[in-house]
Amino acid sequence: MAEVNRRWLLASRPVGMIKDSDFKRVEERVPEPKAGEFVVRVTHLSFDPTQRGWLSMDTYVPAVPIGDVVRAGGVGQVVKSNNPNFRVGQIVQGAFGWQDYALMSDTSGILPTTVLPKGVTPEQALGVFGITGPTAYFGLTQIGKPKPGETVLVSGAAGATGSVAIQIAKAMGCRTIGIAGGPEKCAWVTKVAGADACIDYRRGSVAAQIREYAPHGVNVVFENVGGEILEAALQNLAQHARVVLCGGISAYNDPDPTKSYGIRSYMMLVLARARIQGFIVLDYAAHYPEAITYLSNLMAAGKLKVTDDVQHGFQNIPATLRRLFEGKNLGKQLLKLADPPLPVVH
Amino acid sequence: MAEVNRRWLLASRPVGMIKDSDFKRVEERVPEPKAGEFVVRVTHLSFDPTQRGWLSMDTYVPAVPIGDVVRAGGVGQVVKSNNPNFRVGQIVQGAFGWQDYALMSDTSGILPTTVLPKGVTPEQALGVFGITGPTAYFGLTQIGKPKPGETVLVSGAAGATGSVAIQIAKAMGCRTIGIAGGPEKCAWVTKVAGADACIDYRRGSVAAQIREYAPHGVNVVFENVGGEILEAALQNLAQHARVVLCGGISAYNDPDPTKSYGIRSYMMLVLARARIQGFIVLDYAAHYPEAITYLSNLMAAGKLKVTDDVQHGFQNIPATLRRLFEGKNLGKQLLKLADPPLPVVH
Repeated sequence: MAEVNRRWLLASRPVGMIKDSDFKRVEERVPEPKAGEFVVRVTHLSFDPTQRGWLSMDTYVPAVPIGDVVRAGGVGQVVKSNNPNFRVGQIVQGAFGWQDYALMSDTSGILPTTVLPKGVTPEQALGVFGITGPTAYFGLTQIGKPKPGETVLVSGAAGATGSVAIQIAKAMGCRTIGIAGGPEKCAWVTKVAGADACIDYRRGSVAAQIREYAPHGVNVVFENVGGEILEAALQNLAQHARVVLCGGISAYNDPDPTKSYGIRSYMMLVLARARIQGFIVLDYAAHYPEAITYLSNLMAAGKLKVTDDVQHGFQNIPATLRRLFEGKNLGKQLLKLADPPLPVVH
Repeated sequence: MAEVNRRWLLASRPVGMIKDSDFKRVEERVPEPKAGEFVVRVTHLSFDPTQRGWLSMDTYVPAVPIGDVVRAGGVGQVVKSNNPNFRVGQIVQGAFGWQDYALMSDTSGILPTTVLPKGVTPEQALGVFGITGPTAYFGLTQIGKPKPGETVLVSGAAGATGSVAIQIAKAMGCRTIGIAGGPEKCAWVTKVAGADACIDYRRGSVAAQIREYAPHGVNVVFENVGGEILEAALQNLAQHARVVLCGGISAYNDPDPTKSYGIRSYMMLVLARARIQGFIVLDYAAHYPEAITYLSNLMAAGKLKVTDDVQHGFQNIPATLRRLFEGKNLGKQLLKLADPPLPVVH
């Protein structure tokens, strides 16, 4: 077992695109658990667009304090425990942060630490059965509510959440149109995720391409990108359309939010008697089992394919978060730090 | 009875703020009704922001064709009739247009012609009991759904729709904050309409003023203005807020819609788990009696005060429409063309 705990701390609030220098790498002693505490050797880190907001300001969770370890979800193994709920050797999931060893307790982190169910891989735990799968599920079932035969447009369709949204909408009997960047991602969205069409936003007018595939407008939009992509979607709403506002990744690294892209086509919401509604998946935590059951069944039926983009190397952690905003990841963005160092205990 | 029918026809699609030269004034013979038709002497014209859209493009109704009389709601008196449903002398309401005499039938106009109920004035018929009152009523009861004790923010609060929205929200037991332009309008909004506060958008930051009056955010926004006013509202949403998107008058005369003000704060909808929803009051036509009953009772109880801005002179019709976009009107914008020329028949 390593004797040092490598950690990435938040050095300053990033302005614009995150840089390695926004973070400070330190090495500390591996923590010792006091009563009620336990130590997790982090093996996998999850990267999600919402983490960018945590670095900047209080939102639905408090901002990461300057000097604290950078907050992130992860999977790891319990290596020391003074907490009766966690046994050494168990594989667990929680808000472990950018470090080798996380000192946890029943109340630490923005989400409780949980033991991974048998048969669930770390990749699945952090992706389709973690945050991104339930995000797609609740966004569609609680906000968008697509009906069979309706047309569902999903931006960020090659991402962890969007790719699941495409497949849930398809399973619900909808026509699905994805939006992604580049031919490789678009091919994955249609050939693997099974979308009826995929628009490459790097090729010409997105609005015109939506109109081509959905001349009568789209009934549901699952929006992950915002900005010009959302603008194009608004210009193509069917009557009584529902825009599920999940994220707006295009603006998360804007250095000056007062200069971000502004949505001009909002009056289309009046003409189409339509709505935009935001949501945060944490609000549905009590109903996660419903989502997990649905997603597991879909996967077992061969109707839900997921893919991961797994990076490696402690030094690459900041750059891996950046990949999300550079449009580099296909599927769930992860970084693998280590294998479980101890025999696995269930 | 005048032997000529003065008419304002649409000469060209206006670009930017409407000009008198966008219209062409002509004089024609007073029309003669054929079987099923009747002729209305127009006495009052209604001016509504949505008319600006009708001049430009097909929306929820087809655009006014070039060369046609300009579409507008009005009140008038039946002066000739070959239609068994309408008798000479009756005071009627309908889509009569910018002219002295309208030739109508059971199917002409975007709304059916109806006889004014006894006791309802032309001003009330075109305002609180016409389109603007039901717009406020359905926007609040069907979309915004404010609960007692919640804070309701209304932009365009000195306008025909906004002023009714303020008073309905107050009657529902809500705290009400209006937004209007200038001290005279603001005084009317608080002293006559009874809002708890009114923000003068010409004085400093609207967002900061909303924050001052609603430090915990607003629960419902009744939005008539759009642009920077909507931006300020989005920056002050309470959790689970509902934004009723009724109109966006600030942009209706933008010469180039691709350069209109763009809304940047849409991600606040995510953080506040909030929604924006558009609606068109015509969709609720079947339920108008419910709205009229509610508004009549509120008025009878002394809890609904309305005011009108009545202009005069056929030549002033285009300028009167412009008043809406110049922020000149306090209350419902009307133009009175004539008194009923014949004895009134009920």
